[in-house]
Amino acid sequence: MTGGLKNRGKSKGDVEERRKAVEEYSGAKLDCISSFTFDPKAAERNIENMIGAVQVPLGFAGPLKVCGDHAQGEFLVPMATTEGALLATVSRGCSALTAAGGVNALVIKDEMTRAPVFRVRDIAHGREVAGWVEEHFQEVKQRAEATTKHGKLLSAKPFVTGRSLFIRFAYDTGDAMGMNMATIATQAASELIQEGTGAVLISVSGNLCTDKKPSGVDFILGRGKLVLADALIPREVVEEKLRSAPEPIVEACYRKNLVGSALALSYGHNAHVANMLAAVFIATGQDPAQVVEGSMAMTTAELVDDDLYISVRLPALEVGTVGGGTRLPCQAEALSILGCLGSGQARKFAEIVAAVCLAGELSTLAAQASGQLASAHQALGR
Amino acid sequence: MTGGLKNRGKSKGDVEERRKAVEEYSGAKLDCISSFTFDPKAAERNIENMIGAVQVPLGFAGPLKVCGDHAQGEFLVPMATTEGALLATVSRGCSALTAAGGVNALVIKDEMTRAPVFRVRDIAHGREVAGWVEEHFQEVKQRAEATTKHGKLLSAKPFVTGRSLFIRFAYDTGDAMGMNMATIATQAASELIQEGTGAVLISVSGNLCTDKKPSGVDFILGRGKLVLADALIPREVVEEKLRSAPEPIVEACYRKNLVGSALALSYGHNAHVANMLAAVFIATGQDPAQVVEGSMAMTTAELVDDDLYISVRLPALEVGTVGGGTRLPCQAEALSILGCLGSGQARKFAEIVAAVCLAGELSTLAAQASGQLASAHQALGR
Amino acid sequence: MTGGLKNRGKSKGDVEERRKAVEEYSGAKLDCISSFTFDPKAAERNIENMIGAVQVPLGFAGPLKVCGDHAQGEFLVPMATTEGALLATVSRGCSALTAAGGVNALVIKDEMTRAPVFRVRDIAHGREVAGWVEEHFQEVKQRAEATTKHGKLLSAKPFVTGRSLFIRFAYDTGDAMGMNMATIATQAASELIQEGTGAVLISVSGNLCTDKKPSGVDFILGRGKLVLADALIPREVVEEKLRSAPEPIVEACYRKNLVGSALALSYGHNAHVANMLAAVFIATGQDPAQVVEGSMAMTTAELVDDDLYISVRLPALEVGTVGGGTRLPCQAEALSILGCLGSGQARKFAEIVAAVCLAGELSTLAAQASGQLASAHQALGR
Amino acid sequence: MTGGLKNRGKSKGDVEERRKAVEEYSGAKLDCISSFTFDPKAAERNIENMIGAVQVPLGFAGPLKVCGDHAQGEFLVPMATTEGALLATVSRGCSALTAAGGVNALVIKDEMTRAPVFRVRDIAHGREVAGWVEEHFQEVKQRAEATTKHGKLLSAKPFVTGRSLFIRFAYDTGDAMGMNMATIATQAASELIQEGTGAVLISVSGNLCTDKKPSGVDFILGRGKLVLADALIPREVVEEKLRSAPEPIVEACYRKNLVGSALALSYGHNAHVANMLAAVFIATGQDPAQVVEGSMAMTTAELVDDDLYISVRLPALEVGTVGGGTRLPCQAEALSILGCLGSGQARKFAEIVAAVCLAGELSTLAAQASGQLASAHQALGR
Repeated sequence: MTGGLKNRGKSKGDVEERRKAVEEYSGAKLDCISSFTFDPKAAERNIENMIGAVQVPLGFAGPLKVCGDHAQGEFLVPMATTEGALLATVSRGCSALTAAGGVNALVIKDEMTRAPVFRVRDIAHGREVAGWVEEHFQEVKQRAEATTKHGKLLSAKPFVTGRSLFIRFAYDTGDAMGMNMATIATQAASELIQEGTGAVLISVSGNLCTDKKPSGVDFILGRGKLVLADALIPREVVEEKLRSAPEPIVEACYRKNLVGSALALSYGHNAHVANMLAAVFIATGQDPAQVVEGSMAMTTAELVDDDLYISVRLPALEVGTVGGGTRLPCQAEALSILGCLGSGQARKFAEIVAAVCLAGELSTLAAQASGQLASAHQALGR
Repeated sequence: MTGGLKNRGKSKGDVEERRKAVEEYSGAKLDCISSFTFDPKAAERNIENMIGAVQVPLGFAGPLKVCGDHAQGEFLVPMATTEGALLATVSRGCSALTAAGGVNALVIKDEMTRAPVFRVRDIAHGREVAGWVEEHFQEVKQRAEATTKHGKLLSAKPFVTGRSLFIRFAYDTGDAMGMNMATIATQAASELIQEGTGAVLISVSGNLCTDKKPSGVDFILGRGKLVLADALIPREVVEEKLRSAPEPIVEACYRKNLVGSALALSYGHNAHVANMLAAVFIATGQDPAQVVEGSMAMTTAELVDDDLYISVRLPALEVGTVGGGTRLPCQAEALSILGCLGSGQARKFAEIVAAVCLAGELSTLAAQASGQLASAHQALGR
Repeated sequence: MTGGLKNRGKSKGDVEERRKAVEEYSGAKLDCISSFTFDPKAAERNIENMIGAVQVPLGFAGPLKVCGDHAQGEFLVPMATTEGALLATVSRGCSALTAAGGVNALVIKDEMTRAPVFRVRDIAHGREVAGWVEEHFQEVKQRAEATTKHGKLLSAKPFVTGRSLFIRFAYDTGDAMGMNMATIATQAASELIQEGTGAVLISVSGNLCTDKKPSGVDFILGRGKLVLADALIPREVVEEKLRSAPEPIVEACYRKNLVGSALALSYGHNAHVANMLAAVFIATGQDPAQVVEGSMAMTTAELVDDDLYISVRLPALEVGTVGGGTRLPCQAEALSILGCLGSGQARKFAEIVAAVCLAGELSTLAAQASGQLASAHQALGR
Repeated sequence: MTGGLKNRGKSKGDVEERRKAVEEYSGAKLDCISSFTFDPKAAERNIENMIGAVQVPLGFAGPLKVCGDHAQGEFLVPMATTEGALLATVSRGCSALTAAGGVNALVIKDEMTRAPVFRVRDIAHGREVAGWVEEHFQEVKQRAEATTKHGKLLSAKPFVTGRSLFIRFAYDTGDAMGMNMATIATQAASELIQEGTGAVLISVSGNLCTDKKPSGVDFILGRGKLVLADALIPREVVEEKLRSAPEPIVEACYRKNLVGSALALSYGHNAHVANMLAAVFIATGQDPAQVVEGSMAMTTAELVDDDLYISVRLPALEVGTVGGGTRLPCQAEALSILGCLGSGQARKFAEIVAAVCLAGELSTLAAQASGQLASAHQALGR
């Protein structure tokens, strides 16, 4: 195919022409892909070489009652998936949680990170550069913040090993997920550091950020939003809504999420948090590759006065309600179902996401505890 | 909203009615979400509570030359994303790799796993049950395989700790990703084990599988397809196509993917493999939550005779070309662009996915090595 | 000091002369160090540059009743330590366990590993070399076993990434811990592979072994002996001997060993197994640096019919009863206290070690559960 | 044996009597164990149930030139081991490093941690308690410091998950390793928190400390002393002293410590740091179980202007020069060889330990790079 077609134009006609070239090249018919309904110019900052759109089935889970600092009320949660049984499962969890009075949710920490790596001469130089950054923090901050309207540099933590110096920059990025903002600001700050110290910038991302890889540093220090959610579910609600009882759910959670994940050396101590994240992320225009960090969640269940206590902890939930894919038409509509489109909504959105993760965890643990998992997949999803 | 609407019907009219109820409940207008073009009956085994579809912009990267055991030729790779600059980046990598003669790709191992957890009386009982499974492997296999047309049980590996016994079942699942198949077969096998030994099945998934969580056991033993890809890129191709040179790419790869990922205690020693996986997975109807395991990839670069050698290793690439989301119209079309729709295509598809990951890795490492990352995001993606 | 003194002679006189040179060089008086009582020739294969010995206080814990496959009866366990309160703590655990009828212990797996790393041309070559090793396994085995009287090569598992090929060799090493035996045999085998395939041996240890580093591969596949131990302790024994009750011990074990270790991303889900290992290893001439892998243990506690069930799992217990430090006089005496000196004793010894770990775990968990930890250290160890 | 003998008396006679009882019980002859030469009263706070001492052969490595902030000059380093070839190997490294001008060493961070776990009612309570600790930090600090002459509470970092709250207390512990000091102070602080908030103290150690287990939190945040060491070694020194060349050492370090440790999911990216730590720890009365955290070290090597740059990073080196085993006669003598006995010496000692680790790393990497590892063990250590 002619390379000339690649990303030249952004109009509907350009997309059509490009799609036809792909059909010709590959012999495939792309009727469904071509029948998208938004103006491709709306996506010009979201994709290149566009030939159409993929339609991912969208449904909802809920209503789910959330009692957060920011999210308060009952929500229908939009989820895009191709995994049969998922929405039925999550909805069952929502039903139980709402009947129990709702989910408590808290955002404990909120910062986006980027960690460039520099080559230094040796450890003495590494320590010197780290010291320079500490002393000149205000200058570094100014340089970083000059590149962005919303980002604020909060801290810059150094890690030295041999001739490699990493500085983990942490930003308040407002309602944006903020990775690009952080990258651009960090590039500027890194150039200042390079000039001031003789350290050589090797990569603006040195993987100690850590973006889109499972990572101990994100697990322990957090990235994006650190969110907690929990609920106390009366025994009769567990029995009626989940056809189980607190004890087998507690035992399944113990043997699976704690003992099993420990034996697996897993960074995720949960049943399937990634499922809820992926479905909500795709629906609402979040970055689906960041489900990776998001999946490092811990779900615990305990028997409290004969009722079921259940909680989830998400140390690295990276979401936003402005920028990125959130401005695309379908995705913006999905956010608006939650009343979470635009500025001032990111923490509310994070609380709802954590709550829906809890719903999915509860329901799946109950199903597995009752031996229902395989049969649910047999009936709905196979 | 009336719970009665939930998942009752599957027709276009049912979806419409449900969508309107959501609009009413939430006050949101869902015009774009409602304008999907496939028959919702096609998705009835993929979703419940359907109210429409989310349209994710779809483009392509390539042509990319692949020299695999199964994939041979040049491919345009469909990718669905909302992250600006991603497809331009990957395409640049494809261009360099194709100019270099293409990407070698190999599937080394191929099995889907599920690991139930049982409660046993004590370690002696745990050992006894593990022994029983070994002795009765043929019976266990028959029981498991009786539930599936395509799945073959390959092995069943026990792990005992205290009163918890995990058995990691590994299956050949043909061209399906195979997780549901493995779950159903394992449920049947587990019931046999329960009857035969007195071990009590606590959960058909004990997290030693490990599905949708970052996991040492998947990293070390593999899950789904273990795929390798590499290429040797002449220096002049690096200079022309990537505006870089082998040395800075090798250094960026060393300090970032090895030293940085080591300091981060990351299970992913790569730049952004999750990006390529997420975009291809969404385009082709794979399970996007399995990007989590997929992201545990290792990218290495070395200077070989003054040229650039680069490779990627994916120990847990979980993909299929039949079942799941692959049968949906847009997704099937996307697979057909690669000639990968249907039976007999899964390993070919896996090789192409690994190759496109390598393209993305190469291009991003080159960009970061040249300080281009921030500026690329500034121009295209912000 | 004159380099000429270094390791020239092995007689008592040589050691004296060398010690005096060190005293002169440093100005230190080394009276206690010089007053060792064994013939230094006994240590000539254990150390170079010998100037004396360090005397580590030795005590015992027990009697501890063990019901193993190999260890059967009551044992006094020799432990060398400088940490006050440790032996009192462990002895208290022994007392409770023995009163409860003893500790069950099982060796589940037993193999020593060494994994050389080769440079290969590319992934295709890597696969080819791995295939060659599989095809020529009998030759490789012969070459490896020709270097040793006791070692038997059991398997050789390949791992390829880019231009690096690792082969993890696993040996039966009889009653020796076996690391040197495995190293020498693997060097020979590696040279054969190098000749046969063109792969270049870079290091006989490629860290996928893994020796003396915490490691996922050892945790998951095991190294040395994989040992389990457990006991059921009647409530009244918990109350009398440990001044606690089953419930608080179960809760401490849950929040600390499972939840806490999970949050810490720890490879050790136990209270202080390394303490027992270090004390027994130093007493009996084991390699104390291998406490590192040994520390990757999991301790679980559960309430069973109102009594306390407790277990420990050691996936990488690397011990021997011949060779290494076991032939030194004090160390041989310590082994003989257990009836474990010499051939045919290694698994018995491993079972006793696991049992004494369980004693230490039980006692410390009980103490922590009762808030006694700080006060025990205040009284005995400060 | 009569339980009455256990730990009753501390005199030489008491030890004798107890030793004889052990001989009688076990049938073993303990002549070497009984011939220790220090007054057992000196060890009364170091051990219970004492029956003698184990004599561990002691040698030295060096002279090793160290250029630290605190350690300056050439040192003979006492090491106790039973692993043949170890001291010869380390001494060879010392010789090369000293010829190269010495080892640079820096202590970057210095704090001992203890993290109790509390049961809280739910996440809201967990956040409230964490807030209380922040607000009442001065009171908490006073309560903690009232228990100790030397310890200073530096920070108290909370981690909440479900009904578990961990607070990681970090202390300056002067020249003591400080774990007991930290435990006692934390117990006091925890009781204050319990009273003030209704959180229930479950265990004074919640494993997020993390003591004597490999741990991500220690790796990333540090525990004890975070120490760096490096050196630049001229090519001719590498050739003469190590009979190797910079390139093969750099390659062995790359494939083994970075690629191999990555594939092994190891927390230690080094050759055998645990060996040097174990030998120095046993010689100088450190806690040998803390070799576990110490082993989580990273060794890197690079070619710099045709010479060899090598470095080691130890994020969790837990050592002291007062208290614990350092006051025992042999161990105090060993510390005095380094001029490191007593107050004001802990950082100097830490720098020397890091330097000797570098010596061992350099020498072993050179040996492995030259295929010498197996043959060295064959000649000296078998």
